[in-house]
Amino acid sequence: MSTDWQTGLQLRSLITKGGELRISLPRIPTPAPGAEEVVVRIEASPLNPSDLGLLFGVADMSTAKVAGTPAEPAITATVPEKLLRAMTGRLDESMPVGNEGAGVVVAAGSSPAAQALIGKTVAVLGGAMYSQYRTLNIRQCMVLPEGTKPAEGASCFVNPLTALGMVETMRREGHTALVHTAAASNLGQMLNRICLKDGVNLVNIVRKPDQEALLRSLGAKYVCNSSAPSFMEDLTKALIETGATLAFDAIGGGKLAGQILSCMEAAAVAKMKEYSRYGSPTHKQVYIYGMLDRGPTELTRNFGMAWGLGGWLLTPFLQKIGPAETQKLRERVVAELRTTFASRYTKEISLREALDPATMAAYAKFGTGEKFLINPSRG
Amino acid sequence: MSTDWQTGLQLRSLITKGGELRISLPRIPTPAPGAEEVVVRIEASPLNPSDLGLLFGVADMSTAKVAGTPAEPAITATVPEKLLRAMTGRLDESMPVGNEGAGVVVAAGSSPAAQALIGKTVAVLGGAMYSQYRTLNIRQCMVLPEGTKPAEGASCFVNPLTALGMVETMRREGHTALVHTAAASNLGQMLNRICLKDGVNLVNIVRKPDQEALLRSLGAKYVCNSSAPSFMEDLTKALIETGATLAFDAIGGGKLAGQILSCMEAAAVAKMKEYSRYGSPTHKQVYIYGMLDRGPTELTRNFGMAWGLGGWLLTPFLQKIGPAETQKLRERVVAELRTTFASRYTKEISLREALDPATMAAYAKFGTGEKFLINPSRG
Repeated sequence: MSTDWQTGLQLRSLITKGGELRISLPRIPTPAPGAEEVVVRIEASPLNPSDLGLLFGVADMSTAKVAGTPAEPAITATVPEKLLRAMTGRLDESMPVGNEGAGVVVAAGSSPAAQALIGKTVAVLGGAMYSQYRTLNIRQCMVLPEGTKPAEGASCFVNPLTALGMVETMRREGHTALVHTAAASNLGQMLNRICLKDGVNLVNIVRKPDQEALLRSLGAKYVCNSSAPSFMEDLTKALIETGATLAFDAIGGGKLAGQILSCMEAAAVAKMKEYSRYGSPTHKQVYIYGMLDRGPTELTRNFGMAWGLGGWLLTPFLQKIGPAETQKLRERVVAELRTTFASRYTKEISLREALDPATMAAYAKFGTGEKFLINPSRG
Repeated sequence: MSTDWQTGLQLRSLITKGGELRISLPRIPTPAPGAEEVVVRIEASPLNPSDLGLLFGVADMSTAKVAGTPAEPAITATVPEKLLRAMTGRLDESMPVGNEGAGVVVAAGSSPAAQALIGKTVAVLGGAMYSQYRTLNIRQCMVLPEGTKPAEGASCFVNPLTALGMVETMRREGHTALVHTAAASNLGQMLNRICLKDGVNLVNIVRKPDQEALLRSLGAKYVCNSSAPSFMEDLTKALIETGATLAFDAIGGGKLAGQILSCMEAAAVAKMKEYSRYGSPTHKQVYIYGMLDRGPTELTRNFGMAWGLGGWLLTPFLQKIGPAETQKLRERVVAELRTTFASRYTKEISLREALDPATMAAYAKFGTGEKFLINPSRG
């Protein structure tokens, strides 16, 4: 067996107490696999917004500059002093990045279960995926069906389980329809496919006419454009029709979360027979699960008293539903990997390219419809 | 028996489709009591912030002017057009006001239970208390101990049950200490007394040094002044000491709710061993139960993903805990009416005085420590 895997490049992010972000690409030794472990040559790992949070922290990326050498490339940027406090827990600690990925098993520990994986293409979860090689427990690997390319299996966990988690949360918390923002995203399109398949009404919120057209072409029935002058009326109408009282918001900052609550309230009040100074008794909930806009969230509280806003995160959700339910969701992902859960990428880049300032600026933009895939095996 | 009760003055609030608020004081007939009903001569009814919400709606009270005659006084004010939409449910409908009060039973229906109440001083809940006489079901009346004055029993429900509801919510949602804003208020002082008595750590947030001094003189251990430059550090320190992860916010608008979440997160992170890009896994919750500031709520989301913000309202809370638990809370209020649940008022006014523009401006200010009581029996 080849021993190429014994060292490999790994992308690291460090924020110093002095307020400097340093992203570097050292060559590091790959841990030898234990009996129940395998070494995976990572060939595809998506750049999800949640990865960028760890990669850039709260650094001001407009200050980014090249700091390394061609042999050991690095990028530095300044972290504004007033934001440094939010980074306290990670200061002066070099962090690997990359939630999930897929690749080929190139070495395995002594156990038969590990040995059986050699040569298989697997989807993997567990952090540090922006690495050429990763040593992982076999339980962190999901074997992909014969013929699946790593790029097809790179996003098996975060987006599919998040989208399924939204529908599952809706059911568990007693709602019957959903609202989703940044709905033209990869995740949004996935959620649209799930909802169409499962017969769940989904109100898609986008901010551009071409995103609206895209979603409609994908079969979405309710699409509201937040840039349209009639947005509040359009959304209220869709909420009256669908009865959606739960929204998942990828944006976080600005007025949108509050506008959704306002329109949910207007839809609920439209169905009330009697006035109450406290607004409708219908509970209206928005979960913020992303932060495409890191700015403050502004709520104009004209939505009564029966409302909630909160954070939503995949891992605690999976812990709450437990391993058996989680396994069911995972099995559905693999079964529908090329249909419901297919991801599309606009560009595949190497690890070195991920440190190129122009490329970095492109993937840091979170442009909807744009999605980058890192292929660490390209170096 | 006197029949003086057959008509009486009643304060009414009307918002027209044309955007005018009209507060008036018509004389209306008092419904004759049914078998299980009594007529109460209302002698004391507090002006709670929640009453003012119904009384003024979203009218701009700086535009208030006298509109009636001395015999039939009235006040009008303008409702800004962009806010009128929030009032849709009550437009062109004249609403009586006043959540709770106390008075003397002056007439009763035929049932022995109703007859037994004649002459008794009772605390009453059920709206329209800014009236000279109210016909109420006996179940809406709580007989006060012999010798209790109506003014002492006027605030038996809203503030006491709200304060008890906060402590009960804390226990039911798995928190062990509390944060309260506008903590020098009548309600805040009551909550402070409950927490001292029950051994619950309470972090009181005020905005003026004299309020801080007042609460400390009342035995409060943790008091933070939100106007102090060291507020965020002071609050974080109190949160580390108390472990409070639940706050009740009377203010609603501005940055305070978000600052509390930020400090709760800083306190939780200070106890973490390992960095997580998603912040601490400790759930941090703020409930907004008042709206002393009607402006937008602004959240700078530097508090991880395990957080919630929502509305909290007494009536749904009592429905959730059920009648048996509610009854226990009520009994505690009556038992401790002159100690834990004592309310203090800075001024007693008549119904006519409640329509005087200068008086109105005074009680509309929500000045902490200032609290008005209406005595409708004074006309």
